[in-house]
Amino acid sequence: MGKDPELTIRPIGVVHCGLSSPADAPMNYTESSETGTLEIFTPYTDAMEGLEAGKTIVVLFWLHKARRDLLKVYPRGDRSRGLRGIFTTRSPMRPNPIALSEFTIQEIRGNSILVSGIDVIDGTPILDIKSTVMRINAANR
Amino acid sequence: MGKDPELTIRPIGVVHCGLSSPADAPMNYTESSETGTLEIFTPYTDAMEGLEAGKTIVVLFWLHKARRDLLKVYPRGDRSRGLRGIFTTRSPMRPNPIALSEFTIQEIRGNSILVSGIDVIDGTPILDIKSTVMRINAANR
Repeated sequence: MGKDPELTIRPIGVVHCGLSSPADAPMNYTESSETGTLEIFTPYTDAMEGLEAGKTIVVLFWLHKARRDLLKVYPRGDRSRGLRGIFTTRSPMRPNPIALSEFTIQEIRGNSILVSGIDVIDGTPILDIKSTVMRINAANR
Repeated sequence: MGKDPELTIRPIGVVHCGLSSPADAPMNYTESSETGTLEIFTPYTDAMEGLEAGKTIVVLFWLHKARRDLLKVYPRGDRSRGLRGIFTTRSPMRPNPIALSEFTIQEIRGNSILVSGIDVIDGTPILDIKSTVMRINAANR
């Protein structure tokens, strides 16, 4: 492949929640108790089959309000710790502003997935939903 | 935002490893002992500052050979288990074929990161590198 092709992603859904600006968003999903819904767009709802309350999912978001031009940041905004390379942080500002959160499904309502622990703002595009990885013990295979 | 805009991602690097076709790739990074390097492209090398041997990173890949048109699959190719929605699996075939692996850095050599446990093929675009999440105990904050 060439060195800098552009690749196209298509949102599969959108977040609905009470957080309206990045300043309101918790630093991380492990620090949030915000409840919200993940609306899955109609062309993709068949891919939800098997999702149910109690299951844990990994969700990828596109942080559409985040800057993409920074390569170093102060982690968690703390200037006393010095600038650090973006790739050693979880900063929302990154060349490809893809965020990753883990949720336990509270309820499925039609094409909406209710979760708690939302750390992104209302209107954030959803890129993917995955099951959490099964760590299979190689000795047992 | 509109319902189906297209968003543009730009690879920040590329994988070099001995796996040449998807059929060779292990099902999952937890099942691979393949060693490889993550080459970070020059515009983004400043974002590597602070990465070092022994640190654990989360890496997002774009599975450029994967089908994007399937919504259901047989998990791990096992037809006895029935078709399941893509969003309940870790299948490489998904509307946005973004894969997620976790690695411990073995060595940094210039703009290359040596890791073991590669489960994607040679030439796979790299989208992002993150630190693993810190699960902060809210009671201690």
